[in-house]
Amino acid sequence: MQIDQNKIDGYNSQSLRKHERALAFLQGEIPHAAEIISQLGEFQIAIPSWALGTGGTRFGRFPAGGEPRNLEEKIEDIGLLHRLNRASGAISLHIPWDIPEDPAHIRAVAAAHGLKFDAMNSNTFQDQPGQAHSYKFGSLQNVSRDIRQQAIEHNIEVIRHGIALGSESLTVWLSDGSCFPGQLSFRKAFENTLEGLSEIYAELPDNWKMFVEYKAFEPNFYSTTVGDWGQSLLYASKLGPKAYTLVDLGHHLPNANIEQIVALLLMEGKLGGFHFNDSKYGDDDLTVGSIKPYQLFLIFCELVDGMNARGMKHATDLGWMIDASHNVKDPLEDLLQSVEAIQIAYAQALLVDRKALTAAQERNDVVAAQEILQQAYRTDVRPMVAEARLRAGGALEPLSVYRGEQVRAGLIRRRGLVTIATGL
Amino acid sequence: MQIDQNKIDGYNSQSLRKHERALAFLQGEIPHAAEIISQLGEFQIAIPSWALGTGGTRFGRFPAGGEPRNLEEKIEDIGLLHRLNRASGAISLHIPWDIPEDPAHIRAVAAAHGLKFDAMNSNTFQDQPGQAHSYKFGSLQNVSRDIRQQAIEHNIEVIRHGIALGSESLTVWLSDGSCFPGQLSFRKAFENTLEGLSEIYAELPDNWKMFVEYKAFEPNFYSTTVGDWGQSLLYASKLGPKAYTLVDLGHHLPNANIEQIVALLLMEGKLGGFHFNDSKYGDDDLTVGSIKPYQLFLIFCELVDGMNARGMKHATDLGWMIDASHNVKDPLEDLLQSVEAIQIAYAQALLVDRKALTAAQERNDVVAAQEILQQAYRTDVRPMVAEARLRAGGALEPLSVYRGEQVRAGLIRRRGLVTIATGL
Amino acid sequence: MQIDQNKIDGYNSQSLRKHERALAFLQGEIPHAAEIISQLGEFQIAIPSWALGTGGTRFGRFPAGGEPRNLEEKIEDIGLLHRLNRASGAISLHIPWDIPEDPAHIRAVAAAHGLKFDAMNSNTFQDQPGQAHSYKFGSLQNVSRDIRQQAIEHNIEVIRHGIALGSESLTVWLSDGSCFPGQLSFRKAFENTLEGLSEIYAELPDNWKMFVEYKAFEPNFYSTTVGDWGQSLLYASKLGPKAYTLVDLGHHLPNANIEQIVALLLMEGKLGGFHFNDSKYGDDDLTVGSIKPYQLFLIFCELVDGMNARGMKHATDLGWMIDASHNVKDPLEDLLQSVEAIQIAYAQALLVDRKALTAAQERNDVVAAQEILQQAYRTDVRPMVAEARLRAGGALEPLSVYRGEQVRAGLIRRRGLVTIATGL
Amino acid sequence: MQIDQNKIDGYNSQSLRKHERALAFLQGEIPHAAEIISQLGEFQIAIPSWALGTGGTRFGRFPAGGEPRNLEEKIEDIGLLHRLNRASGAISLHIPWDIPEDPAHIRAVAAAHGLKFDAMNSNTFQDQPGQAHSYKFGSLQNVSRDIRQQAIEHNIEVIRHGIALGSESLTVWLSDGSCFPGQLSFRKAFENTLEGLSEIYAELPDNWKMFVEYKAFEPNFYSTTVGDWGQSLLYASKLGPKAYTLVDLGHHLPNANIEQIVALLLMEGKLGGFHFNDSKYGDDDLTVGSIKPYQLFLIFCELVDGMNARGMKHATDLGWMIDASHNVKDPLEDLLQSVEAIQIAYAQALLVDRKALTAAQERNDVVAAQEILQQAYRTDVRPMVAEARLRAGGALEPLSVYRGEQVRAGLIRRRGLVTIATGL
Repeated sequence: MQIDQNKIDGYNSQSLRKHERALAFLQGEIPHAAEIISQLGEFQIAIPSWALGTGGTRFGRFPAGGEPRNLEEKIEDIGLLHRLNRASGAISLHIPWDIPEDPAHIRAVAAAHGLKFDAMNSNTFQDQPGQAHSYKFGSLQNVSRDIRQQAIEHNIEVIRHGIALGSESLTVWLSDGSCFPGQLSFRKAFENTLEGLSEIYAELPDNWKMFVEYKAFEPNFYSTTVGDWGQSLLYASKLGPKAYTLVDLGHHLPNANIEQIVALLLMEGKLGGFHFNDSKYGDDDLTVGSIKPYQLFLIFCELVDGMNARGMKHATDLGWMIDASHNVKDPLEDLLQSVEAIQIAYAQALLVDRKALTAAQERNDVVAAQEILQQAYRTDVRPMVAEARLRAGGALEPLSVYRGEQVRAGLIRRRGLVTIATGL
Repeated sequence: MQIDQNKIDGYNSQSLRKHERALAFLQGEIPHAAEIISQLGEFQIAIPSWALGTGGTRFGRFPAGGEPRNLEEKIEDIGLLHRLNRASGAISLHIPWDIPEDPAHIRAVAAAHGLKFDAMNSNTFQDQPGQAHSYKFGSLQNVSRDIRQQAIEHNIEVIRHGIALGSESLTVWLSDGSCFPGQLSFRKAFENTLEGLSEIYAELPDNWKMFVEYKAFEPNFYSTTVGDWGQSLLYASKLGPKAYTLVDLGHHLPNANIEQIVALLLMEGKLGGFHFNDSKYGDDDLTVGSIKPYQLFLIFCELVDGMNARGMKHATDLGWMIDASHNVKDPLEDLLQSVEAIQIAYAQALLVDRKALTAAQERNDVVAAQEILQQAYRTDVRPMVAEARLRAGGALEPLSVYRGEQVRAGLIRRRGLVTIATGL
Repeated sequence: MQIDQNKIDGYNSQSLRKHERALAFLQGEIPHAAEIISQLGEFQIAIPSWALGTGGTRFGRFPAGGEPRNLEEKIEDIGLLHRLNRASGAISLHIPWDIPEDPAHIRAVAAAHGLKFDAMNSNTFQDQPGQAHSYKFGSLQNVSRDIRQQAIEHNIEVIRHGIALGSESLTVWLSDGSCFPGQLSFRKAFENTLEGLSEIYAELPDNWKMFVEYKAFEPNFYSTTVGDWGQSLLYASKLGPKAYTLVDLGHHLPNANIEQIVALLLMEGKLGGFHFNDSKYGDDDLTVGSIKPYQLFLIFCELVDGMNARGMKHATDLGWMIDASHNVKDPLEDLLQSVEAIQIAYAQALLVDRKALTAAQERNDVVAAQEILQQAYRTDVRPMVAEARLRAGGALEPLSVYRGEQVRAGLIRRRGLVTIATGL
Repeated sequence: MQIDQNKIDGYNSQSLRKHERALAFLQGEIPHAAEIISQLGEFQIAIPSWALGTGGTRFGRFPAGGEPRNLEEKIEDIGLLHRLNRASGAISLHIPWDIPEDPAHIRAVAAAHGLKFDAMNSNTFQDQPGQAHSYKFGSLQNVSRDIRQQAIEHNIEVIRHGIALGSESLTVWLSDGSCFPGQLSFRKAFENTLEGLSEIYAELPDNWKMFVEYKAFEPNFYSTTVGDWGQSLLYASKLGPKAYTLVDLGHHLPNANIEQIVALLLMEGKLGGFHFNDSKYGDDDLTVGSIKPYQLFLIFCELVDGMNARGMKHATDLGWMIDASHNVKDPLEDLLQSVEAIQIAYAQALLVDRKALTAAQERNDVVAAQEILQQAYRTDVRPMVAEARLRAGGALEPLSVYRGEQVRAGLIRRRGLVTIATGL
């Protein structure tokens, strides 16, 4: 299902005057608005293929209907998002949920929608039908060499799929860990995992990166074998220069200072990618910016500052991805909200007067430092985000177009009410 | 599948000498050991019908095989546990997972295993096939009168099933809540829920109790409509004398002092039931006593003291139940471990020198108060627990018998490897 | 130390054009901007007398200089804040730190600064020189009748001081609790505390309110005798219609949903007062809005909605107070930031399209509900806040005037560098 | 104040028969009891000089009386503890609270009590009278080179004092961090801190170790510059082979798996020291084993296993220290309880059947693994701990002797009621 450019232009023309008034006001306030708009235009966030269907919890799942039934339809859905916001120009695949039987065809479908292939994701946290060994007690950490080998080979297979599609990175999230004290030897689990990661690392093409994702808990509820940034960094450091840490916002203990973690990983040259979502309790996988938007802004402040300090390009030198679940919202609407929240936080971070901030820090002027950050955060930057979309051919108000065009109803008509996309 | 009493006796005779030596030592240390053993003998913990199969998380499920395929087999499994530990003499059913088509037959099956029917559990957190309305946005809290009515009627139906089986209580756990700020009006959600609970309450037989269970989060990740003990107590107080609060150990925010909550609810005459499990992060549903055994002991100290203060009978005046999930353990082994952990904590609490404790409290002797508690906690009370089992005809070492008799292998032979019991 | 109105007008004239441009833009966006500005103008936040000095932790304290040396100077400092922001028109006293030896004089001093006397605060968490009994093991909870009586009499004395000054409420924050399991009987502690509160309650004048503040932990680290909103509500309900719960933002367990607590307390007619601050870990007492501004907004949404539902006047029917500590900031600058953050959140909450929100809730349109809230939150409402100040005679930019006039330097000149105000 | 050996022997003779009965029972259960008793006898825990007085919180302090007035009296107090439990044979000093004006004399005093000098502790979290620069905004992280230099020199001075006393390690705990977003550059703070630590490191004698302690929060409430084990390990790795991480049990975010951290640090060869205490909410500094004794046991399981794997000597190859605060207990009684709790956990860990545990892990037998751990944990090992004391000349029941001899009353008589020891 597609939305014609004419349609989008039509919606835009309706809200253009209001938009231009707001933008003009903002441009009067912000001397370098044009530069921010330009940077926003370049910033793309990958959409994971599994975020296009209704998510669930262990207690149940309430499907919404019209979910994509195959990889082509997933690409189509992201294409639709990208057409509306011009900021979702990449897809992140999950194997085995998205095995591309005909890579050339899939590449062509994606290209037709203007989409690139972001990080490939492996899955050793579930057993697949016909699988020789079970991951019940972990994959790369497993005491059994056979099981570890199976997990290694799966990851190498994922790399191969990625190469065929033009991806350049592999995200390894292991749910490995334990539910009870005594269940495993932390040390052996670490050593086995490192050994397995090393064998996978050895298969990476030269231009690839490996992202080692960490998570504090769930689905294991006593320990996790890649449990925090410190452990991930240990693995990444021992693996080599192509290995990096991946930060998922929901994967921390309560009250963790994520922005500091981001700053330190960038300092070490070991931050590789980012999974956006929001949460109140754990890995709640809620819409980005729906619970703690100020934290998101502070994280972007560190990202911008840390990347600038290393001469990294914001748009391309980290892997940006949404990783959320959509239990009570239309997944596509949720993603539109998430992308906008990310863009807003990014724009606010670009707005920070860093020179003044550094000066305030140098004189320990805590009050001024807070004023400088909040001056940026309290500014309503939405007109700049909308302008960036407009200039790229997208919609001033993506959600309004999505609803105006009754996209979900159309998808249900085409795909049926009871389709269920792969995912959690 | 059953284990002959002869078999159990045979195992017992093997470890009897060792047991008697340990018991004799303990009896020399504890003047009122006989009384504690007697109280242990009366104490029964209900097993929920859904805890007999392998649990899972939203990320996956790794079945163990041999799981009960129907209600009769669930009763059979609990009968087996009870035969081993003589402390699992009740079953708690969940509707619609355990609808008793022929109540008289089911009662007879349970009676044959020496089991009673504990609290009935309703389910409005999942949609059932053919259900008219969805609980996607809650049940009793729902903005739709029709959906609320459906949930009310379901609960009333559960009461009817319970009456037919001889149960005398209804546990209402609502997953109602919200995932995002703004999603619902907290006030209207409370009012709707109260109204619905009142209509259910009106259908309770005179000798029944209603347990209003609370939970801080999951599966809703922003708010829960019965979110903490304060909210549950508000509902229970407004409903009337048959309504009580139910405490599940895993349903609290981090660091909550659960023993104080227990003490206050008992003080108010509003503690009705208890769901045992253990956890590190959230509602992890781990084996009782596997993570925080000292907390379990402290809770039992408050239970014993608070029930004594109100003249309540430990064994019968609260609803005792395990509510756990078994992701990496054989469910029956897990339950044996859980029941023993509960018995140990109960025995330790009975061992506390309450007179000395009160005296220490009266003189603010904090050091002595701790010594008194830890004197009880550090004592190895297992011989008394084993003796209580022995006297009731159970096994000195239930787990050894279970393993020695290769019960799981037998269950798999009879029921198959891929059976999946209803549950989470 | 005072700042002449002429001075303030002078600063205002410098930034007036920029302000008017921003306000005009906002008025074009918000039809009822005038009403919001008017409501902002009425809203006053009390400043606690102990927040005027540098705070500290158990590890140390780093005084800033120029702190008020007595009650008159504290009033003077708040008068200065109020002159700048016209929103700090009340002072909340703490006994024994602020005993007014000559109440008539103190009333006159306050009146000269346009200040009222908000809630009186008692102190039974510290021992004062010459005090007969120690509060080491609690005050109202204490096992000793004599100590409880001393605490009761102290509170009654605080009421008398409050009557003399024209205050109409008493805030009782008890640090009572325990540091170790076994230290106290939760039940007896509750009963003693209730009895003591009842005796204090009996001395309240007819037009007075009593606020029962709760706190999860610190300075006691195992249990607190008024530990959460549920306990506070139990006390307040048993005490009678003049007793209310007071919510301090920093007094919760990790991840607590404070906005829901606020909504339920308002529903029950038992929310009495509010202590603003911000925190990441515990009772961190940081500047309001510096860590979780979105949570602050959500709380204000519930306050506005809940008060409207009961026909309460926002400005006067709850006790609004800042309760923070200022370890690394100039206390007066911190308070200016805090008041502004409160006003911003209040303005955003007033901006919420409640009719549309209710409609979205009625149709379970979670996406729209979030859009409605965030439309208000993302709006830059600062020009309305500034306009409210301007109309009341305050400063467009209070902090700029404060710094421009070098107030702190002036205070140090007058009062000295090593003065230390009473407080934590 | 001293307790004669005769006195101790007298007490011992009274409880000897009961002890021997319990020990005999235990020896019948545990084949290698003798070895455990021997290991217990070698294990010594250092007492920090600041733990001998009553602690406090920012809300107040309630002194107990008889606190040591100088370093000699601190040594005397620890000597008394050591005489009772024969397991507190070391003292850890804090500079500037314990500057040894005459090192030779202080060494002699300590030697007379059988005490060694454990790690030296520096203090850059408070300002001392006459100090040139303030640590209000941090010490080694500070933006000012002068302030950093002052902190560096202080640490070097602490090393010098340590050399004079025969200590061989320096513990650096920095409270450095920030209270507000924007206050500091995380990266520059890290770099400054690393630079400062390097300069201190360069002054370490060859046989010395430097312990880099981490802490999640407090007294800074937004970020800490050595905030978690990952950061500490980064510093220690960059510093060199004499730098290690120090783990304090209370310095973590809620729900952290400390035992896993311990295992990984040992695996990396970078665990240097340990601060024992217990807590429910934060750095509560409660008596060891008073809140989470099972966690303490699990940590000791990792310590024993990890040290064995590296061929480390339990008694000497890590720095063992108590770091607690005593707000409501007699400090010396608290320390006696803490040492015993540590010994119990250590004995239980030694009791674990590690061969069986490894075998269970190798077959993923989670149930058996738990049984093996809990078999050790549930055993009442106190008779072995008491026996170790007895053999070394200590008291079977140290607390009973302490109370029987009315030590606190004696200390108050000698030192006065209002003495206040240095510390928090």
